[in-house]
Amino acid sequence: MDRKYASALLDNAVNQLASLPGIGRKTALRLALYMLRRDAGYTEGFASALLALRRDVCYCLTCHNISESEKCSICADLRRDHTTVCVVENIKEVMAIENTQQFRGVYHVLGGIISPMDGMGPGDLEIESLVRRVEGGEIKEVILALSATMEGDTTGFFIYRKLQPCDVKVTVIARGVSVGDEIEYTDEITLGRSILNRTAFAADNSHNT
Amino acid sequence: MDRKYASALLDNAVNQLASLPGIGRKTALRLALYMLRRDAGYTEGFASALLALRRDVCYCLTCHNISESEKCSICADLRRDHTTVCVVENIKEVMAIENTQQFRGVYHVLGGIISPMDGMGPGDLEIESLVRRVEGGEIKEVILALSATMEGDTTGFFIYRKLQPCDVKVTVIARGVSVGDEIEYTDEITLGRSILNRTAFAADNSHNT
Repeated sequence: MDRKYASALLDNAVNQLASLPGIGRKTALRLALYMLRRDAGYTEGFASALLALRRDVCYCLTCHNISESEKCSICADLRRDHTTVCVVENIKEVMAIENTQQFRGVYHVLGGIISPMDGMGPGDLEIESLVRRVEGGEIKEVILALSATMEGDTTGFFIYRKLQPCDVKVTVIARGVSVGDEIEYTDEITLGRSILNRTAFAADNSHNT
Repeated sequence: MDRKYASALLDNAVNQLASLPGIGRKTALRLALYMLRRDAGYTEGFASALLALRRDVCYCLTCHNISESEKCSICADLRRDHTTVCVVENIKEVMAIENTQQFRGVYHVLGGIISPMDGMGPGDLEIESLVRRVEGGEIKEVILALSATMEGDTTGFFIYRKLQPCDVKVTVIARGVSVGDEIEYTDEITLGRSILNRTAFAADNSHNT
């Protein structure tokens, strides 16, 4: 719309919506007009949910996962195995691993990954607090569940070095051919790793998705 | 994430974001986590822009376009041709036509289109107010710029019938082969129309986008 006929209110709302990642100006306009069509209570509920999220959410003092109190529901759950800590980059990975229902231990959220390109150094991450947790003595195994990228590997190696003085087993999640992938199209580094790290054959293992 | 470990705050925000058209739960989660990463002022600005839009926006009493006062900036512009009214379905079409910079008249926003399937009848649209505007006597031409669909044609015909008693020229925007389209792939109804409604050849017309 010609600038001089635009509504400043609409313009402002569109700009805010378009500032979200993956939302372009066309989508932002569509969303703003959708809100105008809905009743006022809808937009109020929408805005207050976002404000409440930003204002009231806090982070677990132990594992730095998202929480609504000082201890997140995973750390507070006594039926989980508190001797096994899974180290992840972000909250999203906690959700992804929880969804597999294959892990009954607890987590440690780093809050990022070592990436000099993005100005993220080890000091910006929750690595010191992980070391202090492990020094507490209760933890027997630290599982590194970081991305299979250069940054993930660097971060994993840094944590491994930091934990060497402690009496703790450091493991890394398996890398290999994804379930459903064809050998023919698997890249050679993944395929090489999957041969090196082969495991004993189990009849129920091949399609255990 | 396992239900019992989910944060109600996050859940609520994700539900609200996912209620927007075209936003799925995965995108909604990504957006919610993005807001958590940004400072609190970002979410406050975001929420207040949406609330302000919904609360303060009003509609032009003349043309029902989006406005911030009783008269929208287009109706208030005396340099525009107030004898030519372009009838459109929604605000979005006003923006689209304004963007072409080919129209210097004023608008009339119906606020929808006749669509019995969606429960939209003529009474739900701003048709009566259009007739009253035309009866005022100042308007010489009404351009119907409605979608080239069954609903658009029905609405156009209804308005045409309603305006017949008035001394006003009713026109409809041209339908034909879109600029850039190949004849070979144009559907036969469009192509048939484009032959019936052929215009005098003008050298600067063929690529006048």
